[in-house]
Amino acid sequence: MPIDPVQLTADLVRCPSVTPEEGGALVLLEGLLRGAGFECHRIDRNGVPNLFARWGARGAAKTFGFNGHTDVVPVGDEAAWTHPPFGAEISDGFLWGRGATDMKSGVAAFTAAAIDFVTETPPDGAVILTITGDEEGAGRDGTLALLDWMEANGEAMSHCLVGEPTCPERMGEMMKIGRRGSITLYLEAQGVQGHAAYPHRAKNPLHALVSLLGQMTAQPLDAGTAHFDASTLQIVTIDCGNPATNVIPAKARATVNIRFNDLHSGASLSDWAKGLIAGVETETGVTFTLRADISGESFLTPPGMLVDLVADAVEAETGLRPELSTSGGTSDARFVKNHCPVVEFGLVGQTMHSVDERVAVDQIGPLKAIYTRVLQAYFA
Amino acid sequence: MPIDPVQLTADLVRCPSVTPEEGGALVLLEGLLRGAGFECHRIDRNGVPNLFARWGARGAAKTFGFNGHTDVVPVGDEAAWTHPPFGAEISDGFLWGRGATDMKSGVAAFTAAAIDFVTETPPDGAVILTITGDEEGAGRDGTLALLDWMEANGEAMSHCLVGEPTCPERMGEMMKIGRRGSITLYLEAQGVQGHAAYPHRAKNPLHALVSLLGQMTAQPLDAGTAHFDASTLQIVTIDCGNPATNVIPAKARATVNIRFNDLHSGASLSDWAKGLIAGVETETGVTFTLRADISGESFLTPPGMLVDLVADAVEAETGLRPELSTSGGTSDARFVKNHCPVVEFGLVGQTMHSVDERVAVDQIGPLKAIYTRVLQAYFA
Repeated sequence: MPIDPVQLTADLVRCPSVTPEEGGALVLLEGLLRGAGFECHRIDRNGVPNLFARWGARGAAKTFGFNGHTDVVPVGDEAAWTHPPFGAEISDGFLWGRGATDMKSGVAAFTAAAIDFVTETPPDGAVILTITGDEEGAGRDGTLALLDWMEANGEAMSHCLVGEPTCPERMGEMMKIGRRGSITLYLEAQGVQGHAAYPHRAKNPLHALVSLLGQMTAQPLDAGTAHFDASTLQIVTIDCGNPATNVIPAKARATVNIRFNDLHSGASLSDWAKGLIAGVETETGVTFTLRADISGESFLTPPGMLVDLVADAVEAETGLRPELSTSGGTSDARFVKNHCPVVEFGLVGQTMHSVDERVAVDQIGPLKAIYTRVLQAYFA
Repeated sequence: MPIDPVQLTADLVRCPSVTPEEGGALVLLEGLLRGAGFECHRIDRNGVPNLFARWGARGAAKTFGFNGHTDVVPVGDEAAWTHPPFGAEISDGFLWGRGATDMKSGVAAFTAAAIDFVTETPPDGAVILTITGDEEGAGRDGTLALLDWMEANGEAMSHCLVGEPTCPERMGEMMKIGRRGSITLYLEAQGVQGHAAYPHRAKNPLHALVSLLGQMTAQPLDAGTAHFDASTLQIVTIDCGNPATNVIPAKARATVNIRFNDLHSGASLSDWAKGLIAGVETETGVTFTLRADISGESFLTPPGMLVDLVADAVEAETGLRPELSTSGGTSDARFVKNHCPVVEFGLVGQTMHSVDERVAVDQIGPLKAIYTRVLQAYFA
């Protein structure tokens, strides 16, 4: 008897799995998967719970993977919720609760699809599920821990589909075939303090910083590429804290965040910043320190077999040909892409992280159906 | 018997007259001046002590004025002083103590010069001393209170000499014939908060601020004028306080201080800033509030009788023709200039406001002699 993905979503929402709490969600999934013949391992690292599950032979030439997470962000003001955040109540056509869209419905849909698929039409190959309890947190011991463990244990996926919500408004309209990278530049300018009436005796770090940031923001970094939006650079803070209007301060700080496409890398942007800094240092005599934190490089799974297969499944089920997008923030696909080709498809994510997070009940069945079509086509 | 200005300086230094404390300094001077036939009035306002003294007839056609202050800045770390800050000890050719240069020696020198001059060669005219106990503080109830009272009481100076230290290194090398003005611009930029990955949905106030401040600092305001250095503009702080690297902040602040010459006024610079702001607002959609605080307009007493008379006296006594400068910060001359022509001359000010403030003993006698020559020439 097929698994009802709506019921499974509701069961998962009732698990209070706020990062890093497991909340019973992975235990529930492990029980289901073991019952269907999956080999399961809990890959917990530094207190973060993760679940690995494989049906079929380890090292099979064709091994399709799904990736997702059961942890959720905090509920915020619980009194502001129309329905209890861990109640999974169904009302007005929605299933209400924290994680309903991000992404317990996605996990329920691919788990239900995988179990029913291997049960009804056992494929010549393997299906792997990697489900983490730390996607919303630091992310250092979640999907990364699963991939590290897999590499150490001869486990591999040939291709992977991440089940994160990808559709802005209508189910089926968008899938993700990559993501922009993200780098944060922490700048500190050290000048020479002095009296505001005698600037020739001082070196104003704020003037140097304004010059540098002016150069950084004067021109767009690029105009976008075939599959990527333009890279964007945002100054997120400037701080000095000088209370005296007649004093030139000695030091000032700024932080810049860049979301970059495949024309750049973390290293190339660090070098670009260093070049601009060197020019400003020469011009002003102010010295800078730069700390660069690369939280992810950009990546792309170019249109081809995997992309077509997922897009075809989405179109067959929804009637919409999904846009191939690389927009948005980061996801665990940034880790999976170092392991195998990866794309992302899931439902409409409008209420993610909000009070009254909810999922349209009539999207969950089609999502399972899409994942089922992907498996059928992949192993056909 | 002539008054010893070194002894009088020492007596004044022993009065602990840290703003706004009178500390006995004005009481001491009033006693001396009354004894020499000066009519004295304590013009205290809002707790600030001030002394007005006049020898000769009120409203005399020729009335020469001296202006100075007896209040001093705090001593800071008293343990760091080589000699007690209110001890007035004489050692190594210096008289040590808070206020020794700024400006109890100046007050002692012009008080001694005025008393001896009117006693020995009573002039056809009047001599007025205005001495405040609040030059180092807010300055709202010091020289301003004296000038307000004078206006209300039919008292007037024809010309005035402020006895502040004016010489950078050598006694006699510089006098002040005006000062630059000072305006502080408090800027607040209000944008729209958003996610750093989606800048098109936000309006970054920091980008607007960097653009505005870049325009303000791109070009010098001017190249200086006949008697003034170039105007200078300094960003003294920028603050945002945004801790999140993935968030575009809603609001940011900056403070700009401008020291300006006679090509500008507080109003013209406010208008200039408003014009630049309007351009940035149109370009970015970020809105600004501007608060302008004009602490003083620029002013100039052009070369002529008063300037020549003081410069001649300095040259006769020191052998140096003083440079006619308008450099430096502000002084109470900015208030006196609304009352009558005013210039400033005093000794070397190197240790002003420092620990171990001290005055070269052998500069105090010549300073009295210069002030005496000024009076002799003025009434000749």
